[in-house]
Amino acid sequence: MKINGKPYRTIWLADDGWSVEIIDQTKLPHMLVTARLTTVDEVARAILTMQVRGAPLIGATAAYGVAIALRQDASDDALDEAITFLAKQRPTAINLRWALDEMRAAVRNLPRAGRAAAAYKRAAEIADQDVETCRRIGEHGLALIRDIAAGKKPGERVNVLTHCNAGWIACVDWGTATSPIYQAHDAGIPVHVWVDETRPRNQGAALTAFELGAHGVPHTIIVDNAGGHLMQHGEVDLCIVGTDRVTSAGDVANKIGTYLKALAAKDNAVPFYVALPSPTLDPALPDGDAIPIEARSPDEVLGVTGREAHGGSVRVAIAPEGARGYNPAFDVTPARLVTGLLTERGLAAASEAGLAALFPERFA
Amino acid sequence: MKINGKPYRTIWLADDGWSVEIIDQTKLPHMLVTARLTTVDEVARAILTMQVRGAPLIGATAAYGVAIALRQDASDDALDEAITFLAKQRPTAINLRWALDEMRAAVRNLPRAGRAAAAYKRAAEIADQDVETCRRIGEHGLALIRDIAAGKKPGERVNVLTHCNAGWIACVDWGTATSPIYQAHDAGIPVHVWVDETRPRNQGAALTAFELGAHGVPHTIIVDNAGGHLMQHGEVDLCIVGTDRVTSAGDVANKIGTYLKALAAKDNAVPFYVALPSPTLDPALPDGDAIPIEARSPDEVLGVTGREAHGGSVRVAIAPEGARGYNPAFDVTPARLVTGLLTERGLAAASEAGLAALFPERFA
Repeated sequence: MKINGKPYRTIWLADDGWSVEIIDQTKLPHMLVTARLTTVDEVARAILTMQVRGAPLIGATAAYGVAIALRQDASDDALDEAITFLAKQRPTAINLRWALDEMRAAVRNLPRAGRAAAAYKRAAEIADQDVETCRRIGEHGLALIRDIAAGKKPGERVNVLTHCNAGWIACVDWGTATSPIYQAHDAGIPVHVWVDETRPRNQGAALTAFELGAHGVPHTIIVDNAGGHLMQHGEVDLCIVGTDRVTSAGDVANKIGTYLKALAAKDNAVPFYVALPSPTLDPALPDGDAIPIEARSPDEVLGVTGREAHGGSVRVAIAPEGARGYNPAFDVTPARLVTGLLTERGLAAASEAGLAALFPERFA
Repeated sequence: MKINGKPYRTIWLADDGWSVEIIDQTKLPHMLVTARLTTVDEVARAILTMQVRGAPLIGATAAYGVAIALRQDASDDALDEAITFLAKQRPTAINLRWALDEMRAAVRNLPRAGRAAAAYKRAAEIADQDVETCRRIGEHGLALIRDIAAGKKPGERVNVLTHCNAGWIACVDWGTATSPIYQAHDAGIPVHVWVDETRPRNQGAALTAFELGAHGVPHTIIVDNAGGHLMQHGEVDLCIVGTDRVTSAGDVANKIGTYLKALAAKDNAVPFYVALPSPTLDPALPDGDAIPIEARSPDEVLGVTGREAHGGSVRVAIAPEGARGYNPAFDVTPARLVTGLLTERGLAAASEAGLAALFPERFA
């Protein structure tokens, strides 16, 4: 998508043909800074510190990490070491493991001399494939938004609520949850987005608001507490969120707080959709209880990073000195609260039957 | 309650015998600062800027505001003007209107010469009455916590989740939602509190954590998004929240986000109690749709105030420059999600029948 009129992806091969450049998302929305990754350590750190984040982008970045590692040492040991090291940086997003498995499969039967080139090729394919997957999710979601718009007066806005950032900067382009929104906006449907700020890291206020604004989509930031109230008052026509992992039963791991919005949607008969690119589907997991939930540093809860009046980035404490915090990063929304899963192959019911109908090869 | 071993109330008559001193809650938790209020304008500003906040404390402060106004001018016009002016500072909390009605009733039939003294006397009674009301709410809540503790292994902690600050610093002493917690703690029950940070103003992280810590009650701060996940995992034994207004049907207006926690409690069979001092009951309102909801400045959503590393208080922006925000300050939790209303007369069912049984004089 575009930033100030210039088309971007979130990750691309540098002009040197081997290192990788990314948008440093820890600097957004206050500064647009790119960073160059030249070693597997730098790639791992970019994932861990969330310079890149979002399940699909984590996968694509890790794929390039394997390529960078193999360029230096194409041995089996180096391949195993890079994959093990990258896999442990973030535990919840299944795309990371998926992308690393893809990379291993792409190179393991090749002679050493050909591995690096094959790895770069496969990493580029994973990135391109994500773009196409997101584009298709958007097409299917556009149909849902079009239906809602058709039931309104001409010009009346369609209100979408989203949580966290499942936008193009969480992917390579388009985004998952935002792809229907961008396509509706581009099609002239008057769409407006309620953006949950998404504490503790404020990916909504910082990233979703940034990318929607850069593309010109009307939006309003709300605190995470406000969505239920808006739904009670008819101010939300549909919710669309992303996901970090979906089980065979259709249970959805996503950013902490998603479950609360799904409960409110159910209570107010607001459709609740989850944008699910198929690499985020994990049919091996029976249900949500089996999803590992990452606990991040309590410091994220006890403070906030923002921009001071004179423009610098600063971290402020919001709690009494010495206070304790607890910081689970994800929660699981049970399938019963999910209206449908928006995949690149269309809308699936949030159930094993629904998923197996669209992805029979994954449930064989 | 105590701060560093010294007993405090939130509001008290100054040594001069006529001006009023308060704890400036906008400075907490980073600094303990008291402020002196000498005019009705200063009292109104203290309410509007939330130097004092919390429904019961707003009522007590406004009562003293009327006394201060009458000391300067005891005419009917001055009385009306002070009451009208104070009433409009915060629209949602019913206690403000209740306290002002009480003050009018206490002085209107007196000769001018006696009005100021009578007003100070009535304001002091309102403050003392709030302390006693909160103490009794705590007694009834203690019984609930004791029952839960009895079902646990010896020493196993009872986990209470609370939202916003319905603590002693929202009242005159004890608090409403915190009174059962303090009494359980003082009785030796191992109680632990999950403290919702409560964006946008962070009254949980700043105020509830401060006062629990000052009294020695174990607690952990979480983001507003996390409570549902904790309930799904059995980490919450009961919720206790405060309220700004309860209708005759038992619908509960409280800080934005309360509704989401009540939904999660229902979904996980966690009891959800609302601490309700009777002045916060508004039998004239039929249901939640009739409660006016205050929309505060979007700036509260778009930024955060906290303490910098070197100790100063600073406001930081968390959203892109020029972003829009929307900031409804309260929501309404329907009675069907409320396990019970903890009043000074005992536990009431959240219904007209339940409330009328305990407060027949209010439903006459």
